[in-house]
Amino acid sequence: MGKSRLEAFSDGVIAIIITIMVLELKVPHGADLDAVKPLLPSFLSYVLSFIYVGIYWNNHHHLLNAAKRVSGTILWANLNLLFWLSLFPFATGWMGENHFAPLPSAAYGFVLLMAAISYSLLQHFLISAEGHASVLQRAVGADWKGKLSPLLYLIGIGASFSAQWIAQCIYVLVALMWLVPDKRIERTINQIES
Amino acid sequence: MGKSRLEAFSDGVIAIIITIMVLELKVPHGADLDAVKPLLPSFLSYVLSFIYVGIYWNNHHHLLNAAKRVSGTILWANLNLLFWLSLFPFATGWMGENHFAPLPSAAYGFVLLMAAISYSLLQHFLISAEGHASVLQRAVGADWKGKLSPLLYLIGIGASFSAQWIAQCIYVLVALMWLVPDKRIERTINQIES
Amino acid sequence: MGKSRLEAFSDGVIAIIITIMVLELKVPHGADLDAVKPLLPSFLSYVLSFIYVGIYWNNHHHLLNAAKRVSGTILWANLNLLFWLSLFPFATGWMGENHFAPLPSAAYGFVLLMAAISYSLLQHFLISAEGHASVLQRAVGADWKGKLSPLLYLIGIGASFSAQWIAQCIYVLVALMWLVPDKRIERTINQIES
Amino acid sequence: MGKSRLEAFSDGVIAIIITIMVLELKVPHGADLDAVKPLLPSFLSYVLSFIYVGIYWNNHHHLLNAAKRVSGTILWANLNLLFWLSLFPFATGWMGENHFAPLPSAAYGFVLLMAAISYSLLQHFLISAEGHASVLQRAVGADWKGKLSPLLYLIGIGASFSAQWIAQCIYVLVALMWLVPDKRIERTINQIES
Repeated sequence: MGKSRLEAFSDGVIAIIITIMVLELKVPHGADLDAVKPLLPSFLSYVLSFIYVGIYWNNHHHLLNAAKRVSGTILWANLNLLFWLSLFPFATGWMGENHFAPLPSAAYGFVLLMAAISYSLLQHFLISAEGHASVLQRAVGADWKGKLSPLLYLIGIGASFSAQWIAQCIYVLVALMWLVPDKRIERTINQIES
Repeated sequence: MGKSRLEAFSDGVIAIIITIMVLELKVPHGADLDAVKPLLPSFLSYVLSFIYVGIYWNNHHHLLNAAKRVSGTILWANLNLLFWLSLFPFATGWMGENHFAPLPSAAYGFVLLMAAISYSLLQHFLISAEGHASVLQRAVGADWKGKLSPLLYLIGIGASFSAQWIAQCIYVLVALMWLVPDKRIERTINQIES
Repeated sequence: MGKSRLEAFSDGVIAIIITIMVLELKVPHGADLDAVKPLLPSFLSYVLSFIYVGIYWNNHHHLLNAAKRVSGTILWANLNLLFWLSLFPFATGWMGENHFAPLPSAAYGFVLLMAAISYSLLQHFLISAEGHASVLQRAVGADWKGKLSPLLYLIGIGASFSAQWIAQCIYVLVALMWLVPDKRIERTINQIES
Repeated sequence: MGKSRLEAFSDGVIAIIITIMVLELKVPHGADLDAVKPLLPSFLSYVLSFIYVGIYWNNHHHLLNAAKRVSGTILWANLNLLFWLSLFPFATGWMGENHFAPLPSAAYGFVLLMAAISYSLLQHFLISAEGHASVLQRAVGADWKGKLSPLLYLIGIGASFSAQWIAQCIYVLVALMWLVPDKRIERTINQIES
């Protein structure tokens, strides 16, 4: 089974997720500054989620680039990741509309956490299929970012209920940590080829 | 006529269907647990529909993989399948918002039934075009899953009006039955190739 | 310039148009038959529009299949067609929600008319680029369907203001006329190849 | 890293943006002319934005056609462009619904400005990756359109607060200026090939 249709489908779903999130930014009825001011938290949530979905697309791109075989398990691990990514528009809208209130902030962190776990699962199944001596395994390496992120999300979820701004800072921090594209895979492939 | 554009178009439509379903999960105005509790049925409906659309994408993928020729009839049989799949967001939203009430549950079952029939029709036309000695015919085989599902959906539709939870159980059961990816086609292709 | 990205972009836009039309089918708040009955006109409009967009995708597929070169003019002629197709969700929703009232019916006919004219324009520019002795020119031939449809739409628009059901019949009739896939191009290509 | 998946993802996002903008054209509840008249500004805004997004797709197409290498920086420069394009539906809806009021007109101009700057940045990084003697650099040339547009947008933003119709005229003017597809790149490639 070819991986190209899996890539195309994932790209389609991720492209739609990243774009329909903007629909949660409801057009205000007024035309003055007072009408847009309450939208600021929604806008900031949108920016953060756009970056997160961008990161996932980016890393998904690298991950599948290094993979060769696609099995039924991998298809479902991929659909599981897409499921959690598909909850971004809801979680973003809820957190933004309620100005980073405790429960929506925790829910946003929970969606981030589940997406991170799903991504790790997908990576795990891809490596299993490729073999532990594969390019992918060597490229992923110790994967400290992938192991640290869920922990940080958990702290963020906990912090949501006591100090929301700490939760937000953690979510931004993890995004920044990943914003640097995942050069490990690229680098390792280049090393092996040369 | 190439089948690649048919695959690409179907992938696009299915990717959009699976993603816009989440828009029926309306962002609640409150920020506490009471505000999200009423969303639970909508969320469960969304999960079930996400799995169903995932199954259709998965099997559609396998089905067209085994096909070689695409005719006008096949294009329209495919559009017919996409039409019924496009009603998933509506049926899911209606069932979820009304907490699995009888009529919406039956309507959901009806959309599942029509999608199953449309898929069988598409499979039938593809096999006709390939010939009955084709890889596809041998891969599909007796197709007991494809024959059993419509019957189960019919029982589910009937059960909606007397005991809704039986209808829901049946819908979940059929999903689980298909969740196992359709290995017949994959296996037969591998056998023939070796 | 390759035509593959033009095809991919058009497929994407058409796939989204055909799918977001279903969002105009608003999920009713009630769970009984009385709640869905008023949706019947919207549903019928959706079915008709789904078929129309399907026809356009189908014929667009054939048209570009026969084409070889893509110029700036063709890109814009294509975007012009996509623009009018993008108004289908609006026109469909307006006509359905108002139960085929005169003005929305006429507006629907107007969008059909403009899409037909835009399609003819795109076909014209493609033939110009290919040359009049091209496969495409011979395949399109006299194009009586393409010349008859705008006339019928005009009659439909006129009829909307006096007898709405005639307008609807005409719109359905033209759809049926085109539902038969455009075998001319396919046939001519086959003839030339053999 | 191949540029084909970047092109496919960008096409997907741009196709969705150009299509969901039409969702801001809310279906009116009445069926007479008085019900649609207030939609005229929204419709005109939609037409203008459709043309702008069409221009971006067109030029993005040309730009990546001439490019050969895609790096992590280019992926993020591209996502940055897509982010600003994704704000078109919001900005278009806000300006249209408020009949070209000062603040929404300025906001629309600001989104145009940021998209233009992001496009220039993407072009800059692509040229850097290709080298200054590359086809792309020679094709882009002095890029007077790319340098003039931000200035015109700035004037438009300023004019929004005193004479809104001047702002609108400027936005239309810049669109017309770009409507002529960017033949530089096409021409240069042809020259080099022959």
